Amino acid sequence: MAGLDLRKLGELGLIEVLRRRARGARGVWRLGIGDDAAVLRPRPGYDLALTTDTLVEGVHFRWETTDAPSLGHKTLAVNLSDLGAMGARPLGFLLDLCLPVDASPAALAGAVRGLLSEAQIARCPLIGGDTSSGPIWVLSVTALGELPQGSALRRDGARPGERLLVTGTLGGAALGLALLERGQSTVAGARPFVRRQLRPRPPYQAGARLLRSGSATAAIDISDGLTSDLAQLLAASGMGADVQLERLPLARGMRSLCERLGLDAEKLALHGGEDYELLFCLSPNAPSAAVLARLLRCRVTELGVIRAGRGARYLRDGQTIAISPQGFDHFKPVSVSSEK
Amino acid sequence: MAGLDLRKLGELGLIEVLRRRARGARGVWRLGIGDDAAVLRPRPGYDLALTTDTLVEGVHFRWETTDAPSLGHKTLAVNLSDLGAMGARPLGFLLDLCLPVDASPAALAGAVRGLLSEAQIARCPLIGGDTSSGPIWVLSVTALGELPQGSALRRDGARPGERLLVTGTLGGAALGLALLERGQSTVAGARPFVRRQLRPRPPYQAGARLLRSGSATAAIDISDGLTSDLAQLLAASGMGADVQLERLPLARGMRSLCERLGLDAEKLALHGGEDYELLFCLSPNAPSAAVLARLLRCRVTELGVIRAGRGARYLRDGQTIAISPQGFDHFKPVSVSSEK
Repeated sequence: MAGLDLRKLGELGLIEVLRRRARGARGVWRLGIGDDAAVLRPRPGYDLALTTDTLVEGVHFRWETTDAPSLGHKTLAVNLSDLGAMGARPLGFLLDLCLPVDASPAALAGAVRGLLSEAQIARCPLIGGDTSSGPIWVLSVTALGELPQGSALRRDGARPGERLLVTGTLGGAALGLALLERGQSTVAGARPFVRRQLRPRPPYQAGARLLRSGSATAAIDISDGLTSDLAQLLAASGMGADVQLERLPLARGMRSLCERLGLDAEKLALHGGEDYELLFCLSPNAPSAAVLARLLRCRVTELGVIRAGRGARYLRDGQTIAISPQGFDHFKPVSVSSEK
Repeated sequence: MAGLDLRKLGELGLIEVLRRRARGARGVWRLGIGDDAAVLRPRPGYDLALTTDTLVEGVHFRWETTDAPSLGHKTLAVNLSDLGAMGARPLGFLLDLCLPVDASPAALAGAVRGLLSEAQIARCPLIGGDTSSGPIWVLSVTALGELPQGSALRRDGARPGERLLVTGTLGGAALGLALLERGQSTVAGARPFVRRQLRPRPPYQAGARLLRSGSATAAIDISDGLTSDLAQLLAASGMGADVQLERLPLARGMRSLCERLGLDAEKLALHGGEDYELLFCLSPNAPSAAVLARLLRCRVTELGVIRAGRGARYLRDGQTIAISPQGFDHFKPVSVSSEK
């Protein structure tokens, strides 16, 4: 793909490129890019899920530590993660692109390529959007998904005695970010973590499978970090939880790499954001984690149990360890929970 | 409403303020702000329209010439305009807010007030979104509407012999912008034009009424300017049009104010953007403009006719006047059509 030079293309030219390269929106879509709005014919018996997430240059990404195709990929992936956390199957997305007039043609072409290739893999076509000039890159995606009526995996459904589980592994994306920011992204063993940071692969299909299994009572995706997102789920449900620290699922090689570099693997797994794994609750008599892993087609770990009360208690060898929710807050330098 | 200080509120605090102030999303909404995604139960027999529009500080607005409540109002209004141009009734919207950490608490409170009061008037509740820090303000709205299945007012339906009409008056918003930028916003007679620029009131309900009338074959909203948006409608339909220049609907007082200030009223009406009026086509035997005005509850003017061919021909007293489509292009300094 040649570069995309905005000053030659102009706004209409850019839209035309996007329209041509976006694979035809069919199925539920009656009208895609090119009119005042896209038009969708919902399938009878289905609800729609809508979510939006923005990546801002200098805040969510820096060109020193990312590449354009990864940026495009991630812009959609973080939204697919939110759909998956509702149990929804992706249907399509709208894109708001704010770009400097002198945006690198190669970077723009790369970002479009990364975005649309992820869209194709997820069968989630680009169906509309808006383009604008601006001093920095800002990429906003609004994604739509569908799920059987009344079955959305909400945050507020957890009840005492239920099991708390998580897909995949935790902390890898935060380790990748640390490696990138320390200029250590090429040390031995770094690669999978750097990739995890730059090109997250949220298990959004596992979310839809979990919904179909009928055994989940609540779910959230881990975008801000386990402690922070668990706190959100518990607050929405009005519940507490006991979490076994020894069960935290770390990726292979993470602990040893962290030791070599003087990083705390457990802290990254607890508080590091951008894992985009699925945290969910199951009724006590639901399938075992092993059976569920086969059903969801991904690793599943049982972290603990929901109990009456408020907030999470973290335990190691039966002892309570003092751990407060920490997560990234855009407007506060310190942790979310450190102030009233 | 007190100011909203981001450094005190934090991200979760801001979201909580928005959630509390957004009037309950009911009706089709099963789940609003506060989960991984909003959930909608579509009504049987209806299609959904989805559109998105972004306002970027320094590009779409400057603090020197706008106030925060107007900015909030306009952020939603421009999206309502797109829904109206499809004939859709608004259902709700998502908001992506990128804000400087040191955003003025008064400005943020004002923008939220302006946005949510427009949302209440339009019965188009805030149902989700995303917040982020950033060097400038960027406000993106994705709005949803519904319309009877298969009846969307598309751009590509115009056919030879059909009549071309427009709601309201043209050029007023561009005059308002000129007045603001020249520091003449307080001269006698300026007020309605300044207000029109800052607080557009798109006739989105007229769009839904037009759809119900069953007489329209194509529609587009005038956001970039009549010549530019008409060119888009004609290109989508593969048609030409004859437009009578003497029929251009100008607001009362516009011509005299323009003369006093040395501005060209006709050029503003032809090329000035942000009118957010509805440009549409009617089958020849559809109701007269007068009847239609009563039906749509707004001024309606017949501008000309659709003909076979390509692009618009502008006529005065039977003579063709050379006028090329001009509209704002974010990435090109000159007009859209001046280059191939």
